[in-house]
Amino acid sequence: MTKTNSGNFFEDFSLGQKIIHATPRTITEGDVALYIALTGSRFAVQSADTFAMDIGYPAAPVDDMLVFHMVFGKTVPDISLNAVANLGYADCRFLTSVFPGDTLSATSEVIGLRQLSNGKAGVVYVRSSGANQTGETVLEFVRWVMVAKRDEAVPAPEPHVPDLPDHVSPDQLAQDLPPIDSAAYNLELAGAPHRWGDFESGEKIDHVDGMTIEEAEHQIATRLYQNTAKVHFNAHAQADSRFGKRLIYGGHVISLARALSFNGLANAFHISAVNGGSHVAPCFAGDTVYAWSEVLERIEFPAREDIGALRIRTVALKNRTADGFPYKSDGGDYEDGVMLDFDYWAIVPR
Amino acid sequence: MTKTNSGNFFEDFSLGQKIIHATPRTITEGDVALYIALTGSRFAVQSADTFAMDIGYPAAPVDDMLVFHMVFGKTVPDISLNAVANLGYADCRFLTSVFPGDTLSATSEVIGLRQLSNGKAGVVYVRSSGANQTGETVLEFVRWVMVAKRDEAVPAPEPHVPDLPDHVSPDQLAQDLPPIDSAAYNLELAGAPHRWGDFESGEKIDHVDGMTIEEAEHQIATRLYQNTAKVHFNAHAQADSRFGKRLIYGGHVISLARALSFNGLANAFHISAVNGGSHVAPCFAGDTVYAWSEVLERIEFPAREDIGALRIRTVALKNRTADGFPYKSDGGDYEDGVMLDFDYWAIVPR
Amino acid sequence: MTKTNSGNFFEDFSLGQKIIHATPRTITEGDVALYIALTGSRFAVQSADTFAMDIGYPAAPVDDMLVFHMVFGKTVPDISLNAVANLGYADCRFLTSVFPGDTLSATSEVIGLRQLSNGKAGVVYVRSSGANQTGETVLEFVRWVMVAKRDEAVPAPEPHVPDLPDHVSPDQLAQDLPPIDSAAYNLELAGAPHRWGDFESGEKIDHVDGMTIEEAEHQIATRLYQNTAKVHFNAHAQADSRFGKRLIYGGHVISLARALSFNGLANAFHISAVNGGSHVAPCFAGDTVYAWSEVLERIEFPAREDIGALRIRTVALKNRTADGFPYKSDGGDYEDGVMLDFDYWAIVPR
Repeated sequence: MTKTNSGNFFEDFSLGQKIIHATPRTITEGDVALYIALTGSRFAVQSADTFAMDIGYPAAPVDDMLVFHMVFGKTVPDISLNAVANLGYADCRFLTSVFPGDTLSATSEVIGLRQLSNGKAGVVYVRSSGANQTGETVLEFVRWVMVAKRDEAVPAPEPHVPDLPDHVSPDQLAQDLPPIDSAAYNLELAGAPHRWGDFESGEKIDHVDGMTIEEAEHQIATRLYQNTAKVHFNAHAQADSRFGKRLIYGGHVISLARALSFNGLANAFHISAVNGGSHVAPCFAGDTVYAWSEVLERIEFPAREDIGALRIRTVALKNRTADGFPYKSDGGDYEDGVMLDFDYWAIVPR
Repeated sequence: MTKTNSGNFFEDFSLGQKIIHATPRTITEGDVALYIALTGSRFAVQSADTFAMDIGYPAAPVDDMLVFHMVFGKTVPDISLNAVANLGYADCRFLTSVFPGDTLSATSEVIGLRQLSNGKAGVVYVRSSGANQTGETVLEFVRWVMVAKRDEAVPAPEPHVPDLPDHVSPDQLAQDLPPIDSAAYNLELAGAPHRWGDFESGEKIDHVDGMTIEEAEHQIATRLYQNTAKVHFNAHAQADSRFGKRLIYGGHVISLARALSFNGLANAFHISAVNGGSHVAPCFAGDTVYAWSEVLERIEFPAREDIGALRIRTVALKNRTADGFPYKSDGGDYEDGVMLDFDYWAIVPR
Repeated sequence: MTKTNSGNFFEDFSLGQKIIHATPRTITEGDVALYIALTGSRFAVQSADTFAMDIGYPAAPVDDMLVFHMVFGKTVPDISLNAVANLGYADCRFLTSVFPGDTLSATSEVIGLRQLSNGKAGVVYVRSSGANQTGETVLEFVRWVMVAKRDEAVPAPEPHVPDLPDHVSPDQLAQDLPPIDSAAYNLELAGAPHRWGDFESGEKIDHVDGMTIEEAEHQIATRLYQNTAKVHFNAHAQADSRFGKRLIYGGHVISLARALSFNGLANAFHISAVNGGSHVAPCFAGDTVYAWSEVLERIEFPAREDIGALRIRTVALKNRTADGFPYKSDGGDYEDGVMLDFDYWAIVPR
C-alpha cells in the first residue's frame, strides 16, 4: 500500500462529502512581511498597527488575500491536485478579521458534481471554509474545478450543479468589521483623498504601474501558502506540458493586481467579498502585470454611517498597459493580454 | 478627475512645503528576517537579542539601513516618482533606535528648489524624517532629486539651494545609543578582535567577499520597503529605457556593501550618520557586488568612554574585486566598476 | 595587519581546540515564515501552534533543519571558509526544542586532524554544538572537511581520526521531546493516516513531487542562515571555478528533500538525529529536486508508549523522478542524478 497522497480523482468525491484539510497554519508577522515583500502592498490598515488601531481595529489585520491564499492552499492537496482546470469561484465572504498569531485551518464540503459527457473527467464544486483557533469562520468560498477520473469505467454520479449567487448580497458584507472611526481615518497617511462618496458607478481607474514576476517570487509566494499544485514548482515536469514551463498561481496575479490597485483605490482598505474571478490567460515568469478597475456599483449600509461598499471589477493584464482599459472585444471575448477578471466588494470609509 | 497618483512634478513643489507621506509601517521580526535573508548581514547587535541586551539595549535594534529604506520608501511616491535622477543625500542622522513593533511614518519638507536652465526640469531638495509611534524622530536626512516639469511654461521659482553640511558633525552622533557596556561586548561573538582604538585614519580594508544580485532579490527587498519607483520593477516599460532593463534600487547596493563590510568592520555595529552617498554607476541583476572601506577619521566623544566613532568611506564595486582599492583615476573620475561612494559615521566599542 | 578574516587554514587547527563562532542569532517567526516559503514544508507540528500545543508542546517548535542550518551557518567562517570539500557529517543529535524568540550561538571543538599525503591540505574533524540563551545545548553534530594549507612547509600534525558512530544509538533519541499526547495527534490535520506501527523496515516511498530551485531562492535561504560560504553567492568568482557557476548549499537540498517527504512521511514530525549524509553530486540553480525514502529500521522506546522512531534514508535526485527508486548501481556507485544520501532518525506518533 502506498503511503503517498496522489490526490482525489473525480470518482473519489461524493455529494455532501466533508473534507478536513491538512496542515493548520499559524499566521505570523513573518507571513505579513513576506506578503508585502512579494506583492508591494501598501494599504495602510494592513501595514501599520497604529493606523488600524486609530480607526477601531485591535491591531493591523492580516491582508484579506493572504488569508484567502492560506486557506485555499490547504485545500489543494485534496481538491485540485488532479485538476485539469480551475474553472471559477464565487460567493467568497470574509467573516472574521485575522491577526498575526491566529491559526487557520480549512475544511471543504462537496456541493456539486457533474461528469463530462466524454467520461474522462468531471466538475467538482466545493464550498471551502477557513476557521481560526477559536472555531470562528474567517472566510468561506465556493470554487469548481475540472478533475480527471482515475478509472473511466466508474459510473457517473447523479449530476448536481449548485445554485450559486451571481454576486454576494450587500447585506452579507462587512460582518467582520469593527465600527470604523471614519474621522480618525487619516487620508494623508492612507495615501489618497477619496472617500466612498467620491466614487461613482462606471468610473474607471488606470492603476498605471506594472510589476514583472520572477520564478523565484511566485514560487516563494505559493510555497508560503503551502499550496502544492505541481504546475507552479516543477520545471522538469512542466517541460512536457502544454506550455512547456511553470504556470504562476492565479492567486499571485490577484494579489499583484490588488497591490497595484492601491494607486487609485488606496482607501478601498478591505476586501469584504469576492463575487467571482476568472483566470482568462495563464501567467508566466517574466510577464509584467498591469491592472485597471471599474466601479460597478456603490452601496451604503442602512445601519452604518462609517463605511460604504464599492463593487469593483479589477482587470489584470500582461505585457500591455491599462491604457484604454482593455477588456472584451465586441464579440464578447477577452482581449489579448487580459489575464484576470476579478469582481469583488471593497469597503471604503465614508 | 483621475484618482491615480501620477506623482509630483517640479512645479508642484514650493519652498517650505510640508508633505505627509502615505502608508505608515509597523516594523516586525518578519522584516528583520527578510533583511538578513536578502543582505546576509551578520552584525551581532542586530542579530541577537542576547548580545544587544548584554551591552545595554533593551532588545536587538532594527538594522539602521533597514530603517532608512523604510522611511525612504515612503517618500518615493511624493518626491521622486517623476525623478529624472537621484542626485545625492546628506546630513542623515539616526536619532532613536527602532525595535520590532515600532510603527514608522515619514514626512518631508521642501528646503530647496532650482530650475534647470533648459526649463525642462528642476532640482528639488527635501529634508525627510521618520518618526515612531510615539512621535520621536528616528532619523532625518536630506536628499535632492532632479524632477521633470509637467508644463515647461510654468515660470521658474526663485532659486534656493540649501546650505548642507559636508559631513555630520561628531557632536550630533550617537544620540540614540544607550550607554554601552563595553566590557560586556564579546569580541568573539561579534566576530572580530578590533575595538575602536585598533583602527587608524587612512587604513583601508578589502572586504573580500562578493555577492551576486538576482532580479527577484532586489525586487523583494525594494517592495519590502514599499518603495514604488517604477524603474526597479517593470521590465516591460524598462525595455524602452536607456538601459533596456530594470535598475536596482541604490539602497540595496548600500545594504549589500554594508553587509559585506562585516568582514573587517564587524564591530562597527551602528551607523550613526550618513555624510553623503553617490550612486556612481547603475547596478543590474547579475552584477556581483564587492566592497572596500577606508577609515577617514577616528573621533572620540568627550562625554563617553564606552564608544568612539569612525568616519568610513565604503566603496562598492561591480564585477571586479576590491584588490588595489579601485576608486578614482588621477583625473578625479571614478574608475570603471565603482558603483557607490558612501561616507558615513560608524560607532565602535572602545 | 589586515582586519579581514580570511578563514582558518589546515595548520591553524589543533586537536582539542575550542572555537566560539560569531554572530549569535535570535530565531523569530520571520525565520519560520521564510523557511516555509523557501521549502514548502507542511509538517503540522511546526506549522501550527494549536497542533503543537494539542500534543504537548508549549508552542510550535522551530523546524529541526532550520535549527541545524542556523548553527551550521555560524561555523562556516571559522571551519570551512577554505574548505576544498565538505566530506561528511555524523552523530547529529537534536537535544532541546527551539522556539521563536530563542537565541542560538555555536561553538566547535577540533576532534581530529589528518594531513593528506600530498601535503597540500588536510582533513579537519569538528564537533559543533548550538546552545540557546539559557545555555542548553540544542543540537550537536560532527562534520569533517578538507581544508587547504596556507603554507605547505608547516609540518603535519600527529594524525588523529576520531571514532564516529555509524549511527546514533536509539537510546539517545527523543531527548528533547515532551510527552506526546498521541490520541490528540489529529491524523487528518497532520495529513496522513499512518502511525509508527504502519511503517515497516524495507518499505520504500516515492515522494512524487518535484521542486525546481532558482538562484534567488537558495541565496535567500543560505543568507538567512548567515552562512558565508563563497561558492553559493558569487557568480563572478565562480565563473572561473570547476563548475563555472554557483553551487547550492547542500543543506538547502536536504531541506527540500525533507519538505517533499511530507508526501508519504507526514507523521514523521521530528528529526531526532542525523546518522550521516553525503552530498553525492552538486546542485545548481535550475535543477529540479525529487526524493524518495526507505524505512531502514523501526524501533520503539522502552519507556515511551507515545512515540516510536523510524530510521530513514532519504535520497534526493536531480532532474529525474524517483520512479524505480534510483540509488546505487551494482558496482556500488551512486546512479546518475542522485544528489543526496541522507540517513536520519524520525519520530512518529504511535
